[in-house]
Amino acid sequence: MDNINGSSLEEMRDILGRLPGPDEDAAARAAARESQLTKPPGALARLEALNEWLARWQGRHPPRIDRPRAAVFAGNHGIAARGVSAYPAEVTAQMVANFQAGGAAINQLCRMFDAELRVYELALEQPTVDFVEGPAMTDAECANAMAFGMMAVEDGLDVICLGEMGIANTTSAAALCHALFGGVAADWTGPGTGVGGEALEAKTRIVADAVALHGSARDDPLEILRRLGGRELAAIVGAIIAARIGRVPVLLDGYACTAAAAVLYRVSPQLIAHCTVAHRSAEPGHARLLEAIGQVPLLDLGMRLGEASGAVLALAVLRAAVACHTGMATFAEAGVSGPA
Amino acid sequence: MDNINGSSLEEMRDILGRLPGPDEDAAARAAARESQLTKPPGALARLEALNEWLARWQGRHPPRIDRPRAAVFAGNHGIAARGVSAYPAEVTAQMVANFQAGGAAINQLCRMFDAELRVYELALEQPTVDFVEGPAMTDAECANAMAFGMMAVEDGLDVICLGEMGIANTTSAAALCHALFGGVAADWTGPGTGVGGEALEAKTRIVADAVALHGSARDDPLEILRRLGGRELAAIVGAIIAARIGRVPVLLDGYACTAAAAVLYRVSPQLIAHCTVAHRSAEPGHARLLEAIGQVPLLDLGMRLGEASGAVLALAVLRAAVACHTGMATFAEAGVSGPA
Repeated sequence: MDNINGSSLEEMRDILGRLPGPDEDAAARAAARESQLTKPPGALARLEALNEWLARWQGRHPPRIDRPRAAVFAGNHGIAARGVSAYPAEVTAQMVANFQAGGAAINQLCRMFDAELRVYELALEQPTVDFVEGPAMTDAECANAMAFGMMAVEDGLDVICLGEMGIANTTSAAALCHALFGGVAADWTGPGTGVGGEALEAKTRIVADAVALHGSARDDPLEILRRLGGRELAAIVGAIIAARIGRVPVLLDGYACTAAAAVLYRVSPQLIAHCTVAHRSAEPGHARLLEAIGQVPLLDLGMRLGEASGAVLALAVLRAAVACHTGMATFAEAGVSGPA
Repeated sequence: MDNINGSSLEEMRDILGRLPGPDEDAAARAAARESQLTKPPGALARLEALNEWLARWQGRHPPRIDRPRAAVFAGNHGIAARGVSAYPAEVTAQMVANFQAGGAAINQLCRMFDAELRVYELALEQPTVDFVEGPAMTDAECANAMAFGMMAVEDGLDVICLGEMGIANTTSAAALCHALFGGVAADWTGPGTGVGGEALEAKTRIVADAVALHGSARDDPLEILRRLGGRELAAIVGAIIAARIGRVPVLLDGYACTAAAAVLYRVSPQLIAHCTVAHRSAEPGHARLLEAIGQVPLLDLGMRLGEASGAVLALAVLRAAVACHTGMATFAEAGVSGPA
C-alpha cells in the first residue's frame, strides 16, 4: 500500500456526504415479482427481503450474484505486544501465506461457493501504534488504509464479502465499540482467539484504558477509527464506502468487520444500509453490536474465525434467494390455484 | 404406490428394534482432524460438529457430500375439506406438477446446490380419512406409505433432504405434536399457508377434537401416526428409518417434516440421532417442537414453505463444513504458529 498517498480523513468525510441512495423502484419491482411466485405470500421470508435489498442497492431488477468477491484485509496491531491474543503477532503474516497457498477455511469456502478471493496485506511489517499510548494511526495512515480498501471494489462485482485477519483485532474492535456505543469495556471485550481468566481481564482493562485516553473523540467516528482502529479495519470502512458508490451490496463478516462498519453507522445509520451482517459471531460483543446497529444476521452457527468465512457462507443464502426469485414460476404460469 | 402391499405396522415396529448405531470411531477421527486445522480450536463451531455428526452416521471418515438427494413426498388429507388451509386441496397436485415442470422454489434450490430432486406422490386422488371422524389411515395404508418412503433411500446417497407438500398437513402436524407431547391444541396450531382469525380458531378446535378422539393411543407413536398423520408424513418416517439403515444422514425440513420425525423420537430419541433439523419454520409450533426433541436448527430465515426448501438450503452449510474439513491445511502443513 506504499504507493497510495495523499488521502486525508477530511477528503473521506467529504465523500461520505455524497454517497448514492437506494433504488426504491428496483426494490418495488422485486417485491411485486415475489408476490406472484408459486408460494404462499411471504413464505420465503428473509429470502424475499434479500431480493428487495439486492435490487435496491444493485440498482437493478432482477438482482444478480454472478460475480461475488471475498476481500480479506490483513493488518497488524501495536496492541498485540500486550498479549491480548492467544496467538503471537506473526500469525497474521503466516495466515496470509496460508490464504495464498489455499489452505485456510476461506479458501475452501470461496471454492465451494464460487467466489473470487482477494487478500490485501496492509503493511504487516509495520504494526499500528499501541493505542494505550497514543493514536493507532496518523491521519494519513488511516485515510490511506481506507483508500487502499476502496480499491477492492471493482466494476462488475455483484456483491462483496468483507473480512479480516489481524492478531489482536478483537481488542481494537472492542475499543471501537466501547468508544462508539458506550457501556463498559466488559460489554465489548471477549475471548477472541481464545483468551480467558486473567488474560481476558487484562484485555478488558486495556480496552477501558484505551477508551479513557481516546474516548473524548467519540462524536467524530472517523477520528475514533484513527485512534483505536487498525489498518485492516480502516480498509474495510473504505471498501464499504466504495461498494456504496459502485452499487455493490456488502456482506459483513463477524465482530471486527461489523465494528468497522459501525464507524460509518455512527456517522449516519443510512451509510451502511447497503450492508447485511452475514453471521452472528460467538464473540459476545457481536450480539450487543448487532442490536446497537439494528441488524439481524443471516446465519448463527457459533463461528468466530473471521477471514470473511461467515460472509462467504452467507453468499449461499443470497444465491438461493436470487435463484428462487429469477427461476420460480408465477401462479399464472404454473396454473396453480390461489387462496380458496 | 399401489404396487406396494403387504407391509404392516407390526413389521415396522420390528425394524425399529434393529437399527444400526453410531460409528463413534469415525466421529473421533473427524474431531481429531478438526483440532489440527489452521484455526483457533472450535472457531468453526457448528461446522466442526457437523463433520463429527456426518462421520458418525455415514460411518466413515472423512465424510462426503458428493451425492445429496432431496425427497419431497406429497399427500392429500381428508381434513382439508374442513377449510383448515388458505388453499384448496387441488393445490397439492398442482404443486407436484410445478415440481415436475421445474417451477417451484425447490427446483431452483436443488439446481443451485446441486442436489438430485425426487418427488413422490402418494395416492393424491385418495385423501386420508378426516381424522375428526376416524383414523386417517388403516394399518396397511400407513405401513405401505412408510414402505414407499423407504424406497427414497438408495445405495450411494451421502445425505438426504426430506420435505413434503400436502394442503392441510400443518393441521396433521399439529395434531401429531399435540398427541405426542401434550400441552393444548393452541400450542401447536398456527397459520400454515396463512389462515388467521376465525379460521385459525376453527383449525385449533379441529386439532383439539382430533386429539380428544385419538389421544388415548399416545403411548403408541406409530398408532398416533396412523390415526392423525398423512401418507406423506408416514413416508417421511419410512425414509428416516431407511436412511438410518443405509447410513445416510438426514436433513429435516420444517414443521410437518419434523413432526413426522417426532413420531420416531417418541418411540426412542436415539432413532432420529442421524437427523438434523435444517431450518426453524415461522410456524410457531416448530420452535416448541424443536425444544421438545432437543434440536437446534442450522438456519433461521423465517421461511414456512415446506417442499424441502429449508433442508436443501442447509445443504450449503453441510457442504461448507465438509469442504473446510477436507481442504484446510493443518498448522504443521501451513507452518502457522500455535498459541503463544
